[in-house]
Amino acid sequence: MPKIVNHEERKALIAKATWNVIARDGLGGASVRSIAKEANLSLGAVRHYFNTQEELLEFAMQLVEEQATERIMEHAKQQLPPKEVTLNMLMELIPPEDRVVEMQVWLEYISYKLRKKELKEDSVHQGINLIMNKLNDAGLLKVDINLEEEIIHLHALIDGIALHLLMGFITIGRDRIRALIERELDRIFI
Amino acid sequence: MPKIVNHEERKALIAKATWNVIARDGLGGASVRSIAKEANLSLGAVRHYFNTQEELLEFAMQLVEEQATERIMEHAKQQLPPKEVTLNMLMELIPPEDRVVEMQVWLEYISYKLRKKELKEDSVHQGINLIMNKLNDAGLLKVDINLEEEIIHLHALIDGIALHLLMGFITIGRDRIRALIERELDRIFI
Repeated sequence: MPKIVNHEERKALIAKATWNVIARDGLGGASVRSIAKEANLSLGAVRHYFNTQEELLEFAMQLVEEQATERIMEHAKQQLPPKEVTLNMLMELIPPEDRVVEMQVWLEYISYKLRKKELKEDSVHQGINLIMNKLNDAGLLKVDINLEEEIIHLHALIDGIALHLLMGFITIGRDRIRALIERELDRIFI
Repeated sequence: MPKIVNHEERKALIAKATWNVIARDGLGGASVRSIAKEANLSLGAVRHYFNTQEELLEFAMQLVEEQATERIMEHAKQQLPPKEVTLNMLMELIPPEDRVVEMQVWLEYISYKLRKKELKEDSVHQGINLIMNKLNDAGLLKVDINLEEEIIHLHALIDGIALHLLMGFITIGRDRIRALIERELDRIFI
């Protein structure tokens, strides 16, 4: 009788192995073989999820996005003041130390897509746009702000902080980062 | 008689070819051979500047940094109000459309250095720190700001904007980007 495989668990295991290999060896060093070795699985088990290097990168990024979206959506369910919910959501885009490898995969992904000239609007950017527009429609934001510019400002600040955290430029802890972003929200929330 | 070579011109020519190859094929596709071909030079002429892929990337990044530093220093010489000089300097860190390839090389460089665990404080980050500290020492900044946090905020915002410009997320022109950054300076300048 063949072993019963929990596909969600296996997918997560392979994704983690993929992130580790990309973070260590770059996209150039990531292959079905190296990832199977890292995950301690057979080539066939890994090929079930991707075959080419391109599929591998798409798989790794998709998992990052799915998990981030799930975490963000959890906050949306909380019964908290809208500004706090927004802040909690945005903080999910700044990975804590034990998930900083996701950010490294994201950088490799962007570089790869830029070379291929295939970079499209990502779901995070769409998500921030959606949230801010909903808050605005609900009358929660100041009327004299330029919403388009505020969204650009907020998302740039968050990705800049995430990037600089990865690069080791940021000398303050998560609580003070949170306060910096909250200050931005204070500026635009009523 | 051997041809007299203008080393500065040749260096710039090879750097530009290097940026183009990295932007198109990634670091994995960049070699002395591919760059010599792109620059229409002999292998030997290119080997004068770098031999290994690591030296190639260092060469390409060094040129980006040198040129950026030069442009920034030009602004320091201008007889303008300090806030305007600062704004002009910071805007040099957001590449215009025809220099966006430099940003792509920068991303490849960061990814490479992160994989190698060799990423060090870069000269741009040091430069922003230096400028903001000088402005503060000269009594030009508000006394109730947290300078460390404001530097983190400002640099993250600028790199986030540069990154999102490269990714095609930014729908506003340079004049409105400039106004966004000026608003941040207004908050901290007296």
